[in-house]
Amino acid sequence: MRVVALAGGTGGAKLAHGLQLVLPAGDLAVVVNTGDDIERHGLLVMPDHDAVLYMLDGRFDDARGWGIAGETWTVMDELERYGEEAWFRLGDRDFATHIARGARLRGGATLTDAVLSLQTARGIPTPILPMADEPVRTKVRTDDGWLDFQEYFVHRRQAPEVHEIRFDGIDAAQPTPRVMSAIDAAELVLIGPSNPFASIGPILALPGMRHRIMAARSRGVPVIAVSPIVQGVALKGPADRMMASLGHESSAAGVAALYADLLTGFVLDAVDAALEPAIRALGMRTLVTDTIMADDAGRARLARTIMEFAGTS
Amino acid sequence: MRVVALAGGTGGAKLAHGLQLVLPAGDLAVVVNTGDDIERHGLLVMPDHDAVLYMLDGRFDDARGWGIAGETWTVMDELERYGEEAWFRLGDRDFATHIARGARLRGGATLTDAVLSLQTARGIPTPILPMADEPVRTKVRTDDGWLDFQEYFVHRRQAPEVHEIRFDGIDAAQPTPRVMSAIDAAELVLIGPSNPFASIGPILALPGMRHRIMAARSRGVPVIAVSPIVQGVALKGPADRMMASLGHESSAAGVAALYADLLTGFVLDAVDAALEPAIRALGMRTLVTDTIMADDAGRARLARTIMEFAGTS
Repeated sequence: MRVVALAGGTGGAKLAHGLQLVLPAGDLAVVVNTGDDIERHGLLVMPDHDAVLYMLDGRFDDARGWGIAGETWTVMDELERYGEEAWFRLGDRDFATHIARGARLRGGATLTDAVLSLQTARGIPTPILPMADEPVRTKVRTDDGWLDFQEYFVHRRQAPEVHEIRFDGIDAAQPTPRVMSAIDAAELVLIGPSNPFASIGPILALPGMRHRIMAARSRGVPVIAVSPIVQGVALKGPADRMMASLGHESSAAGVAALYADLLTGFVLDAVDAALEPAIRALGMRTLVTDTIMADDAGRARLARTIMEFAGTS
Repeated sequence: MRVVALAGGTGGAKLAHGLQLVLPAGDLAVVVNTGDDIERHGLLVMPDHDAVLYMLDGRFDDARGWGIAGETWTVMDELERYGEEAWFRLGDRDFATHIARGARLRGGATLTDAVLSLQTARGIPTPILPMADEPVRTKVRTDDGWLDFQEYFVHRRQAPEVHEIRFDGIDAAQPTPRVMSAIDAAELVLIGPSNPFASIGPILALPGMRHRIMAARSRGVPVIAVSPIVQGVALKGPADRMMASLGHESSAAGVAALYADLLTGFVLDAVDAALEPAIRALGMRTLVTDTIMADDAGRARLARTIMEFAGTS
């Protein structure tokens, strides 16, 4: 089954890993959010792409929840001694990713070609596709005014309440040819358990993207989302607080409602089974299962369960 | 005594360190060659500037002869796994220098302002001034054709014979305002014991540079060079072989002859005392002394001896 997974952040990356574990090489493509990409120390840093990269490579630091396991911090410590801002911590191995990517970009590669060459060098069987080659930058309006996403997310530790979100550059961006052909060839489009506003929002806001997914759905391709909210709470990050502060119910049902026009199916956690009727009432099928991906086996199990669910439409 | 030292490579960097050890802060400025700067992995690497930076900072790896003592190689090893060329090895702390400098350059700083901000952050009392803000790139013609300097110097370990040397970009470059004002204010212009072709050559080839030094000399400022050749041999690097292959005598006298039009004085090692008459015959004073700078004390001693020599003109 050819699967396209939309991902951003840890939840989506874990599910992508589960899918890679159970799918034949070549059957999975991951489309990653680039709205929270950021320039640090003159280098392009791609937190969502790199979370998937390190996850699919078996290097992700599950304990810390970001970056590479066993990371060291020599470069960052030195940069601080040179007076560089250090609130966005980057490890030595992580720096190598940004440097290698920057070298390719400065050599004239598109963002897509630059990251694909890194993935290939690492032997990762799954293409991890930036949603767009053009820069898109997510900003959030808080009581402190408009902030760059990472300023809000990392520097201010998601403390300010988010009243509004926008994606600078989105109108001039477009889904890449690789992204579009992956969706056109997909037998399942899966929206990962990622922040609907900050992670999935930019992907769906790209000109033509919703239309492309709807076209797949019209061909009978299931379009399924996995709830990032369990028992009203985000497993990681500020998705729950953003749901509430942006005027939505912080629940699996609230997430399903956000995507209602796109979805044929929705996956919610067993602890939220009581929400199933409300979600079905939105006009989609439901799968109630354990969505907590505690380890590789849990990731693979969820991926397999979702594919079985998708196959029974 | 306000001193301007021209430097490139380890010998010049050691003498600069000796001068910093004995001069009051503010009395020394070092002008560094930028002809062997190179882009690696999308980052500007400045071997001559950085040799002086690490030397004046007390971090230079004297045992290895380049880079930072106690260096680690995590980033380089990872870059290799990403398929990046690895013949030009850069340590983790060294990478931090290139990253921090790159961040400032991409922020719009001139090369001079970028490196001065690094030096200031490190608390180095001596300005280390790039000879020019515009890019100059040294190429050498060998039996294998024209090579980038670092390709010859590092990748091919100086094995090919050098038949010709040129400095791409030199005509469009100029000594920076900081370099010119340092020379104008100098009470001693000192050419360090560096490769006359590859290290000092680009500095002196800058449009207007020789004229500026001659103007200082006309005001009675001593212009003194220290031989990088001792007993016919370069202490480090290919200066001796380049002297010979470019048609000069590989000796202290050969070096003195190269600079003869500029110099009022020349410093040669005690083991080469027999060359003193030939050098004096070129129309310059001579200082015969121990020029081997085995440790900090040796560097300081040589610096002090040269300043005494300069003061007795």
